[in-house]
Amino acid sequence: MDKKIRIGILGYGNLGKGIEIGIKNNSDMELVAIFTRRDPDKISTITGTKVVSIDDIENWKDKIDVMMLCGGSATDLPVQGPKYSEIFNTIDSFDTHHDIPEYYKKVDESAKKGNNIALISVGWDPGLFSVNRLMAECFLQNGNTYTFWGKGVSQGHSDAIRRIDGVKNGVQYTIPIDEAMNRVRNGENPELTVREKHLRECFVVLEDGADSKKIEEEIKNMPNYFDEYDTIVHFISEEELKRDHSTMPHGGFVIRSGKTGVENQTNQIIEYSLKLESNPEFTASVLLAYARAIYRMKQNGDVGAKTVFDIAPCMLSPKNKDEILKIL
Amino acid sequence: MDKKIRIGILGYGNLGKGIEIGIKNNSDMELVAIFTRRDPDKISTITGTKVVSIDDIENWKDKIDVMMLCGGSATDLPVQGPKYSEIFNTIDSFDTHHDIPEYYKKVDESAKKGNNIALISVGWDPGLFSVNRLMAECFLQNGNTYTFWGKGVSQGHSDAIRRIDGVKNGVQYTIPIDEAMNRVRNGENPELTVREKHLRECFVVLEDGADSKKIEEEIKNMPNYFDEYDTIVHFISEEELKRDHSTMPHGGFVIRSGKTGVENQTNQIIEYSLKLESNPEFTASVLLAYARAIYRMKQNGDVGAKTVFDIAPCMLSPKNKDEILKIL
Repeated sequence: MDKKIRIGILGYGNLGKGIEIGIKNNSDMELVAIFTRRDPDKISTITGTKVVSIDDIENWKDKIDVMMLCGGSATDLPVQGPKYSEIFNTIDSFDTHHDIPEYYKKVDESAKKGNNIALISVGWDPGLFSVNRLMAECFLQNGNTYTFWGKGVSQGHSDAIRRIDGVKNGVQYTIPIDEAMNRVRNGENPELTVREKHLRECFVVLEDGADSKKIEEEIKNMPNYFDEYDTIVHFISEEELKRDHSTMPHGGFVIRSGKTGVENQTNQIIEYSLKLESNPEFTASVLLAYARAIYRMKQNGDVGAKTVFDIAPCMLSPKNKDEILKIL
Repeated sequence: MDKKIRIGILGYGNLGKGIEIGIKNNSDMELVAIFTRRDPDKISTITGTKVVSIDDIENWKDKIDVMMLCGGSATDLPVQGPKYSEIFNTIDSFDTHHDIPEYYKKVDESAKKGNNIALISVGWDPGLFSVNRLMAECFLQNGNTYTFWGKGVSQGHSDAIRRIDGVKNGVQYTIPIDEAMNRVRNGENPELTVREKHLRECFVVLEDGADSKKIEEEIKNMPNYFDEYDTIVHFISEEELKRDHSTMPHGGFVIRSGKTGVENQTNQIIEYSLKLESNPEFTASVLLAYARAIYRMKQNGDVGAKTVFDIAPCMLSPKNKDEILKIL
């Protein structure tokens, strides 16, 4: 048995916890420590893993093979990515689409300076969905790609609801519309508006005395988040919300509808889908497989920023080359 | 514009024709010549591409970047793979699962001798389905993988029917059984027999005076091909067969059902599926994308036998690194 890949976690939220839990299904890895900005003594971990202050993280340089950056894309990762990729091989799930090229450039510089690999924007979207969109486009160059999300909880939309005055709590589900998906699967190559692709369903807990009619209107007309969609709003009690809406399911579909043949008359459909009972647990599992890949690529002498597009499938697997050949 | 990737085709059957037709959707490629064991003067190609005798193939060493080996796995490729990978970068769709490790070894030796890359067993199964099985297992290590094929024409089973005395012609469809697929998608992780997974439906044209009852029994009890399945046999006329069953649709589903969470209590499903109106045209499109990949890997100095597991997604795309980053 080779020595295990030593994993560190920076940031102990839903994703960090998912990695902590998920590592047991990866027998070639061990979780060394969880790093936090909070007081380590006040955090009790699910598996009893050691918690360390972020101030001490540089002392762990030689004790960790891959550091999983589990912070958010808005404020954490733009700082942490460039900073820690100079010290460690890193993986993150940076998902501010517009800023990816700039983020890639910064992380690439610092990873190269530290002789490390930094794999950015890993997860399922961006991540596995990106890989499937790219590959499907290569196989069916003449065609259209459609992405549908859900049914699942959107954190961004749930947060937007919770920021409204008079709202105590709330959860928003994004729901793909069957009719649109079926038209795509039938090879119709339709032009779809945002309203035709997804429905938004909200479960909202009101503060005492709040005006439900007014809040429903405010949600439905919220620019960018809801105004272009058909939105259903339910008002429920805090108990109902906790009982029925406390898990984080998600998923989605990438469908490529392409044409081949002499007259491009032949319909060909590639579809990739996820049905996840826990979004953070699945995302964590994906990050762990990619941690294996960059650990190996580093051993092969590779450095710098990478994306999921740079990772050959064989690098993700704990199996060796002969075992993999057999499953071809 | 860089110079185009120069493609050659060896073997002018369904797959070779698919590549000939498909190349127009790959603006960075050009088809140089089609090589055949038959008399070149007796072949008229769909696009007017030059046809050359296989005896002259070595003279084309410096005129072709990637040679697509379109022969069969039974007798053509075991000879052609090792022989031509010493002269050209090659791609094939070798699919005799049991012999892949030995074939890989032989092709690896000759490709290295000729300083070429030989990518073996490309297509959708083996090929894209293999990639999806491997990747899904890496992301959900605790789980089961299910492959369903169809609805589509199985050449092997159609050939088996046509070999029966008294059968003039016939087509066999492999049909996945919805109930089994739905149990898998629901996370039940069922143990499924071959009979529970697929149904076989045959359309048979009899010779004059043949005994339909006897032939139906012979089909249904044919070892390996039909005896473990529920099989439906229809007898139709040659005209009906030509009218209704002359296309080659196929497809299938790879479903990984895995568990995550502290007690492995969380269901997570990854599904990849293809719905193809033309199996050979789609397979050809896949081979062309992989031709681009090995052309580039060769330029990067790589040599030897490769499989789809060795190919990073970015290598398949005609887009450059900056364009790819934008679609992440």
